[in-house]
Amino acid sequence: MDQSQHFLDIFFNPRSVAIVGASTNPDRLNYNLVKNLLKLNFPGDVYPVNPSAREILGLKAYPSVKDIEADVDLAVVSVSSSTAMDVIRDCVAKGVGGVTIVAGGFSEVGDQGRRTQDEIRDLLRKNNIRAIGPNSLSPINTAKNFAISFNSMERLKQGHLAFVFQSGLYDPRVNWMFSEFNLRLSKLIDLGNKMDVNEVDALEYLAHDPETRVIAMHMESIAGDGRKLLQLLKETTREKPVIILKTGRTEAGIRAASSHTGALAKGSDLVFDAALKQSGAIRAQTLEEFFDLAKAFEFLGPLAGNRIAIATLPGGEAVITADLCQERGFTLAEVAPETREKLRRLFPPWEVEVNPFDIGVCGQFHSHEEVYSVFMRSMADDPHVDCLAVQLRGRDLPGSDEFLGSFLLAKERHKPLAMWVPGGPGGRFDIVDWLEERGIPLYQSADAAIKALAALKTYSIMQGTFQTI
Amino acid sequence: MDQSQHFLDIFFNPRSVAIVGASTNPDRLNYNLVKNLLKLNFPGDVYPVNPSAREILGLKAYPSVKDIEADVDLAVVSVSSSTAMDVIRDCVAKGVGGVTIVAGGFSEVGDQGRRTQDEIRDLLRKNNIRAIGPNSLSPINTAKNFAISFNSMERLKQGHLAFVFQSGLYDPRVNWMFSEFNLRLSKLIDLGNKMDVNEVDALEYLAHDPETRVIAMHMESIAGDGRKLLQLLKETTREKPVIILKTGRTEAGIRAASSHTGALAKGSDLVFDAALKQSGAIRAQTLEEFFDLAKAFEFLGPLAGNRIAIATLPGGEAVITADLCQERGFTLAEVAPETREKLRRLFPPWEVEVNPFDIGVCGQFHSHEEVYSVFMRSMADDPHVDCLAVQLRGRDLPGSDEFLGSFLLAKERHKPLAMWVPGGPGGRFDIVDWLEERGIPLYQSADAAIKALAALKTYSIMQGTFQTI
Repeated sequence: MDQSQHFLDIFFNPRSVAIVGASTNPDRLNYNLVKNLLKLNFPGDVYPVNPSAREILGLKAYPSVKDIEADVDLAVVSVSSSTAMDVIRDCVAKGVGGVTIVAGGFSEVGDQGRRTQDEIRDLLRKNNIRAIGPNSLSPINTAKNFAISFNSMERLKQGHLAFVFQSGLYDPRVNWMFSEFNLRLSKLIDLGNKMDVNEVDALEYLAHDPETRVIAMHMESIAGDGRKLLQLLKETTREKPVIILKTGRTEAGIRAASSHTGALAKGSDLVFDAALKQSGAIRAQTLEEFFDLAKAFEFLGPLAGNRIAIATLPGGEAVITADLCQERGFTLAEVAPETREKLRRLFPPWEVEVNPFDIGVCGQFHSHEEVYSVFMRSMADDPHVDCLAVQLRGRDLPGSDEFLGSFLLAKERHKPLAMWVPGGPGGRFDIVDWLEERGIPLYQSADAAIKALAALKTYSIMQGTFQTI
Repeated sequence: MDQSQHFLDIFFNPRSVAIVGASTNPDRLNYNLVKNLLKLNFPGDVYPVNPSAREILGLKAYPSVKDIEADVDLAVVSVSSSTAMDVIRDCVAKGVGGVTIVAGGFSEVGDQGRRTQDEIRDLLRKNNIRAIGPNSLSPINTAKNFAISFNSMERLKQGHLAFVFQSGLYDPRVNWMFSEFNLRLSKLIDLGNKMDVNEVDALEYLAHDPETRVIAMHMESIAGDGRKLLQLLKETTREKPVIILKTGRTEAGIRAASSHTGALAKGSDLVFDAALKQSGAIRAQTLEEFFDLAKAFEFLGPLAGNRIAIATLPGGEAVITADLCQERGFTLAEVAPETREKLRRLFPPWEVEVNPFDIGVCGQFHSHEEVYSVFMRSMADDPHVDCLAVQLRGRDLPGSDEFLGSFLLAKERHKPLAMWVPGGPGGRFDIVDWLEERGIPLYQSADAAIKALAALKTYSIMQGTFQTI
């Protein structure tokens, strides 16, 4: 299917956007809806709508959507739920291409809200206007410098990872995602209460989106046809990995979801989990794992086999990492004799150069730059090694081309490399950004790094590109 | 028992320390062994031993331990394994009080190393000199400004948490522990190859140490009598929580441990795990959890019940946190009507003030300072709330006394409060240090925060101070 024919295309590629509820007050969240589009150099036309302003951020403001002379592809509605219906009537009168309802106060707050939401849905449906939300911050399309967010956005980074969220879970993390966490996105869609557009629609669009190679979906509920979703997942995962964070796993979670996006629970989590496994999708257990796996699939290619080489700085961490690897189905690679030969000179006489390698001890006798460089090159060359888990030393790493280049070799040889730095929050340095910009992920712990590689392994096994040794 | 009579006391409270292998070269790790003691203002006498130096860091250097005129309570031996035996002979001749062998190259590297280690052990034993190591960095006693570390140490923070490590797992994290992670320690002992002093000795000493209220033990193997260890754990955990990180859970891990500290595996991990549960110790599953739980027990008191109040910034995280709480046996507190009344004015008309509370939405209409302050005070006052999991907003929080003080109220009312900030690595701000210095832990995620509270709950249930509702 031609993507431009899909009804969601106008949401990601609007030529003109009306921001209804645009604010002149920098302290209000609605201020950022317009400000971000200007800052990001969104190339389409932006029409702020606010009956009590004549100009917002240098743009002419309109009293109503109806007053905009030009065509409006997308109306972003960020007004209180009590006035939303009036705005929607204006959108219908104007004949907008699509609507994103950012505002909350609908089905998530009870019967009255649900009634209003139903009325809005029915009116839009009757007029063939599709709508995302309410209670959603959508969408982002990095290729078009287009982002709807309450946060003042510092930057977008273009890539091949698409996110589907339900509710604004991502919004407080939006700058973190693109900056500290170094994610590169194709598109992002936040579905909110899923009054109309649901997770099946989003998946359908992204499955065929040529700019999207990895899909990460957060769901609190399934609003569409569950069987259709699983069938679509089955088809999509043949081409693209899909990572799923399904929350509302417990009664308490379901109740919270219902007061938050008006989501209704369908079936038990155990049944859903089993069905998901059948579909080929990868389930993330926590929010952190969701982002970690998304990064793994966006950054790294498939695994050719399960033979892993490990390097850590304290030996105690080698033991921990070896445990994690065996528990997740990896085999510690037995490196070739030539490889041990190359490594021999790094190690003091009393240390054995076996996998998992305790390279911390080498750093006492050689520069860390040399240790990493020799290690990374040896592993890239060794045909007995399929993938790598390597702990990175902290602050005082220098950055010669020889040294930095050695990390890229594994990638060139199609050996996924996951790294981590000791000491969590303080562990972000220039080299982290340098590596991540080149597609080498740095995790918060050995645990996170091995989980990420294990998810790649699971997907590679399903793809049939994998040899267990 | 009088602690000063325990043989380990001289290792933690030496009046004089010889550093054998002290270096004049700031690039060598051994340089820091002396430098740290000077920087930290260790009040005892320090005697650098190095046959080719006359002075090290302003201190007179001695060719051999034997040449030191005064008594030597503790000899820290950091020379290569090939010359270690000669140094030990000198220590015996001198009649030192105890020996810590920092050097590696012994049982962890094979038969030759194990033979040397056995010879050293036998000679020391014959002369009634107890020894930690080899392959260990020990000890730290914050009350005495005493720390043996290869890292240039920035500071110690005195508290009531004692660590037992096997191998230098902690050393690359030593500054992180005291600074970014804000841990406050009483003592730390790293046992290395456990040639003589083992985990049973360490636990025995710390169990009776009045400065230690929480014990966190990392073990790759059990060198002492397993039954005695479990019995001692049973007795100790009645008084003090003990957190255990046992690595070498798998064959790959055991092999790695053996080439790393020469540890020998005993029995299966499943058997150990079951026995541990019986003993009342709390097992950490990952290295990160080990530190997280240590912080929870050091910072927070026991739980009086399982009714939890949750506040998050995006609503989606409320769902995630509710799931985590139910999965770990917490009940979402039904707050009192008066509490809802107090909260009512924070929430917009269309939002319901129910637990889990989505306070992100309140921040659109009130200052974050006010939102947290009202929320924290209401929960501290509500008799239906036993503990709190609260997500902290990031960078732009102000810090009035009213606002900051509200976080301390929960602590005063004996309601453990665990917090987290969205967005991982970037999420460390001034307020984090302010809160942690006052004993309110900030975790990396809701997952980590709830795991920490759940560990407190497990221990409180065992202590019998707990009411399930």
